[in-house]
Formats: sequence, C-alpha cells, structure tokens
Amino acid sequence: MYAPSVDNLIAQLARLPGVGRRTAQRLAFHLLKASEADANALADAIREVKERIRPCSRCFNLAEEELCEICADARRDGSLICVVEDPSDVIALERTHEYRGLYHVLGGALSPIDGVDPEHLRIAELLQRVEGDEVAEVLLATNPTMTGEATAAYLADRLRGRCRVTRLASGLPVGGDLEYADEVTLGRALAGRREM
Amino acid sequence: MYAPSVDNLIAQLARLPGVGRRTAQRLAFHLLKASEADANALADAIREVKERIRPCSRCFNLAEEELCEICADARRDGSLICVVEDPSDVIALERTHEYRGLYHVLGGALSPIDGVDPEHLRIAELLQRVEGDEVAEVLLATNPTMTGEATAAYLADRLRGRCRVTRLASGLPVGGDLEYADEVTLGRALAGRREM
Repeated sequence: MYAPSVDNLIAQLARLPGVGRRTAQRLAFHLLKASEADANALADAIREVKERIRPCSRCFNLAEEELCEICADARRDGSLICVVEDPSDVIALERTHEYRGLYHVLGGALSPIDGVDPEHLRIAELLQRVEGDEVAEVLLATNPTMTGEATAAYLADRLRGRCRVTRLASGLPVGGDLEYADEVTLGRALAGRREM
Repeated sequence: MYAPSVDNLIAQLARLPGVGRRTAQRLAFHLLKASEADANALADAIREVKERIRPCSRCFNLAEEELCEICADARRDGSLICVVEDPSDVIALERTHEYRGLYHVLGGALSPIDGVDPEHLRIAELLQRVEGDEVAEVLLATNPTMTGEATAAYLADRLRGRCRVTRLASGLPVGGDLEYADEVTLGRALAGRREM
C-alpha cells in the first residue's frame, strides 16, 4: 500500500521501544513532510552517535574520548565510586547535582535465570579499581529491584573489608526503576545512604 | 551532562511529534544499546525515503516513480477521483478495500487565517484533471473539520456542472457509543438518517 521506501521506514521506526505501527506511520509521515535537511539531521545524529560513542575505559559510562566527561573531570572526587547498572542511571544521578564522585557502570544486573553471571558484568574491573586507586567508599546504586538488590548484596560481599560500602537509601519506591525516579526522591536517597 | 553526540541525538528525536524529552532519552539509549547495523538501518531508511519519495505527477500522492502505485495501476477506475488533504488519508481509505478509483492529494485544507488560499493547494491541478480526463465523479474526502468542510464546499462550487460531486457521509463512528458522541456528529447522523 505504501511505496517500498516508506514501508521500510515505518518498519524501522516500529522497532523502537514503545512505538507501535500507528505511531511509526505518524512519525514516517512527519519525516516525509519535514524538509530534507531536518530529516537528514536525525539520520546523521543516529549515525554519528554510533560512530562516536564508546564505553569509557575506566568506568564504562558513555564516552566520546578514551575517558568519559565525568572521569576526565579533575574536580570529581576519585575516592568515591557509585556503581550503577546502566549509563542512563548516571544521567539520573547527575541530575540531582548532589553527587561529586565517580561512577562504575556494570552493564546490567546479576540474573542467573537470564544467564547474567558476575563475569558478564564489569565486576572484575570494579574490583580492580578499588584495588588500585585510593577508593574510600563504593556506593551501590543498582536498581531497587530483585536483580538490582541481589547485585548490590553480591558486590557488598566482594568489597567487604576493602573500603566503605554503602547503598542508596530506601525511599525509592521498591520495584521502581532508578532511571525514572524524580530528582528530589533520588537526592534524598543519596543523602541518606546507609552502610551495608 | 551527555556526550555532545548523545545530546544532539536526543534533541533530534525530541523534534518528532508526540516525543517529549524523556521519550527522546529512552529512544536514544535504545539506539545506543542497539547494534550499529540496526541503528544505521533506521538512519538509512530516513535518508532513503527523502531521496526516493516525490509527489506523483498526476495525483500528488507519495511516489517513487513518475506515477504513484495507484495511478500506475490500470485496474483502478479512472472515472472516479477521491480528493483528500494528505497522503496519509490515501492510506486510511485504501485500508477499507472499498474504493477502486483514483485520488487527488490537495496538500492540506483551505484556511485563510493561516494563509492557506486556493493557490497553495493542488486545486488548479484537480480542475485540470476533471477537464481533461473522462471523470464522472469527484468524491470530496477532506476531513470533517472546519477547514476540511470549507475546502469541500469551495471545491463543490468550482466543480458544479462539470461532473458528479459527492462527500463522505458524516455520522456516528461504527462501534461508538451514542452517549459519548458530540452534538455536531449526532446532529449530522440525525440529518443523514436513512431508510431501513
């Protein structure tokens, strides 16, 4: 019913999360109506992000250089490492403007049932950072979900005796996702972090 | 807070209709996680559609060739032209599988207040088609909105005496509930009541 290139665009858009076929059609028609420059700006932005973005060699956050902007910032407190599951969690924490330490992005949470074991996450790299650097505290900020809690418990075990280990305070709605927490709640959780 | 290329991608995604900043972030992180091939497939689909798609030289529907697939289809009834505002309306009508005539895409509806006058729409081209071809009927299928109705009234005037001019029926949507129908729709349904 559509020209082949329109059909293909709709199919590609419909692969995005939360985008059904109707929404994909609406987006496609928007792009068809948009100027060529505007539409291509989106295409270029996608290509560029895939070309430029790579994991930070120290914390595995998104980076355009060898180190991400946070690791490269000399004003950040290198004695404090906040461990998160995904790069989007870094953004959520940065939005509070209450955290001045560094991060460590695990790349997910432990979930043996899904085949995610310690060796699939950046856990060895975290332990190495704690070993090597003068790290005083590791703040476990995995999601307050079953897998996130299990990951925090596992890491607390592995880190015990090497440095202070803390966990984001409860106050986060249990079963929720850190990425979607509002800034105030997340700020409170930061301020009230407890020993594990 | 984000790497510049990620920031740019989020900004570009947020320009899509119905996509707020949070959704744009979610889509951006999805694309960051996706394989390079998958992400670039979307980028390429956007570029390709802008390169390939042009208006059909006869009806101004979306086309990859000189004529759109409908105009190029010899089995369609050339004596019947359905006038719509946008290419997406063609798709909506095709989905019914009940229409076998051709189309004419105006490119919008008359709206003097927004500076859309007859010369900004493909009205001259419609009149020329009715003049030249053996057109027996023009079905006005502009939207049942103020601007769509005004456009239909204007076209009916211009076409009077040249061919049969019809309008899509207004009434209650099938599957809808009378209790929730707005007054205008219900009024139309009353006025257009038919024998059973």
